[in-house]
Amino acid sequence: MLTDNIELIKHTFEESIPMHKFLGLKIVLLEKNFVRITVPFRKELVGDFRNNRWHGGIIATVMDSVGGVIGATRFTSLEDKISTIDLRVDYLRGAEPEAIMVEGKIIRFGNRILVARMKAFQNDTLIAEGKGVYNFVRMNEHLDNNDDEQSE
Amino acid sequence: MLTDNIELIKHTFEESIPMHKFLGLKIVLLEKNFVRITVPFRKELVGDFRNNRWHGGIIATVMDSVGGVIGATRFTSLEDKISTIDLRVDYLRGAEPEAIMVEGKIIRFGNRILVARMKAFQNDTLIAEGKGVYNFVRMNEHLDNNDDEQSE
Amino acid sequence: MLTDNIELIKHTFEESIPMHKFLGLKIVLLEKNFVRITVPFRKELVGDFRNNRWHGGIIATVMDSVGGVIGATRFTSLEDKISTIDLRVDYLRGAEPEAIMVEGKIIRFGNRILVARMKAFQNDTLIAEGKGVYNFVRMNEHLDNNDDEQSE
Amino acid sequence: MLTDNIELIKHTFEESIPMHKFLGLKIVLLEKNFVRITVPFRKELVGDFRNNRWHGGIIATVMDSVGGVIGATRFTSLEDKISTIDLRVDYLRGAEPEAIMVEGKIIRFGNRILVARMKAFQNDTLIAEGKGVYNFVRMNEHLDNNDDEQSE
Repeated sequence: MLTDNIELIKHTFEESIPMHKFLGLKIVLLEKNFVRITVPFRKELVGDFRNNRWHGGIIATVMDSVGGVIGATRFTSLEDKISTIDLRVDYLRGAEPEAIMVEGKIIRFGNRILVARMKAFQNDTLIAEGKGVYNFVRMNEHLDNNDDEQSE
Repeated sequence: MLTDNIELIKHTFEESIPMHKFLGLKIVLLEKNFVRITVPFRKELVGDFRNNRWHGGIIATVMDSVGGVIGATRFTSLEDKISTIDLRVDYLRGAEPEAIMVEGKIIRFGNRILVARMKAFQNDTLIAEGKGVYNFVRMNEHLDNNDDEQSE
Repeated sequence: MLTDNIELIKHTFEESIPMHKFLGLKIVLLEKNFVRITVPFRKELVGDFRNNRWHGGIIATVMDSVGGVIGATRFTSLEDKISTIDLRVDYLRGAEPEAIMVEGKIIRFGNRILVARMKAFQNDTLIAEGKGVYNFVRMNEHLDNNDDEQSE
Repeated sequence: MLTDNIELIKHTFEESIPMHKFLGLKIVLLEKNFVRITVPFRKELVGDFRNNRWHGGIIATVMDSVGGVIGATRFTSLEDKISTIDLRVDYLRGAEPEAIMVEGKIIRFGNRILVARMKAFQNDTLIAEGKGVYNFVRMNEHLDNNDDEQSE
């Protein structure tokens, strides 16, 4: 089990994934069903040049990463993979030119299907919410079963 | 009406929006209800370092831009704005390290609400689909009415 | 303002909307930004005849009604209307043949756009989550403004 | 393989699923990756009593059924099951008090994951679009593989 290898996962996601490294993404808290990620503002990421606001797609990008990060805590092999099936984002307010924080929580965890609920904040103000459905591709198929866990 | 100012819109989106400029996003076709955008592969955008595949969030980013680009063809003032209400992406296959093409089509156009349907391709293979709902903030409120157009 | 007419809204939604009357839908709590609805099990609503479980579409139906009910608390005229722009449901577990409870909360409220977050329960177990985006069609256009409220 | 048992699937979905029987749902065309369903208007399904329009949740209900119907054509055992992971509907216009037709098409088909794209019509006018992600629970696990087919 890699569940306890939080530091390894954190390092891999921050340093080995080029998109995350470019964003300066940091995993500030990582638990079995929960992750908190921060990303500093960077001017290349502006989508609304009249107000200097973040492109909404970057918030989607960070939300998409949530499933991969939390999913990795459940890997049973270094060959396991997570792929996104679908991602949905509700934008509640424009993101100002300062850091964003994204929190993700697993709400369904099966052997194959992972569903995460995400919230994005700036200075404690909720700016967006999201959902992601992910496919867990495990190399150890003999572990396969159809039981889901849910948490709330 | 700015409807005919396709070249101005194209130039503004490609050159003045920092995120688009960073991505090297090009608007290769822009009509009243349709846009085709291309983005070259770039190694900073990799999300799966084992296969050198694009981070799925960048596909979401380009899809999110669709509403803004098409919406701009309907601006009645340079002060008009488009903001994303929600965005949804279905990922059908991993995006290989080569250019992506995203097509967007308006399926609902009201004075306030714009709904777009998007498809992403690599070499004519469909790799993702999306939907975006956008809010049209018009400065000329006297033009306001509640009629929607739909196209299919 | 009809804000205080909770009993009128409750009665109208339960008795005058044929779908709600057929479902036996009850509004058990209605506040400015929150609603709690219950629907008893009824055998015509079964979708999985091997397990006698509810058709998931009925959970979507009750979630869809959330926006209409809460939106009505903000009507400024009896001619105001709410229409659904989009609805998304995540199913977390099958719904057993017993009553369901759906809670809805407004997370964005503008003069035109209403966004609600919904949760469905059976006996305190979360069985589904949803989001709805609604269009507020107000007859008193002079009240129109673009300010959004968000709550969390 | 049950693939050829179109008549059996059609009969089961129309007659044995209580919700479908109540709706008077008819499967008018069923192929390997495509289904066309019709549902007659019925006054218990009205959601907007001022205009006698269908409750939008019923359109979601019929869309949700699409995955089950098409998925059944791929059953390898009578014990196989399809469950909905998530469902999304974009409403483009109100549904008048007359029959609706829903078409569904598989856009991704793996051993475990099924993704369908749906469109709803009244008299050839598109009134809503949807997407559904479904989980294929197969009893014959030895057939399991991770290969997806996509069609467009």
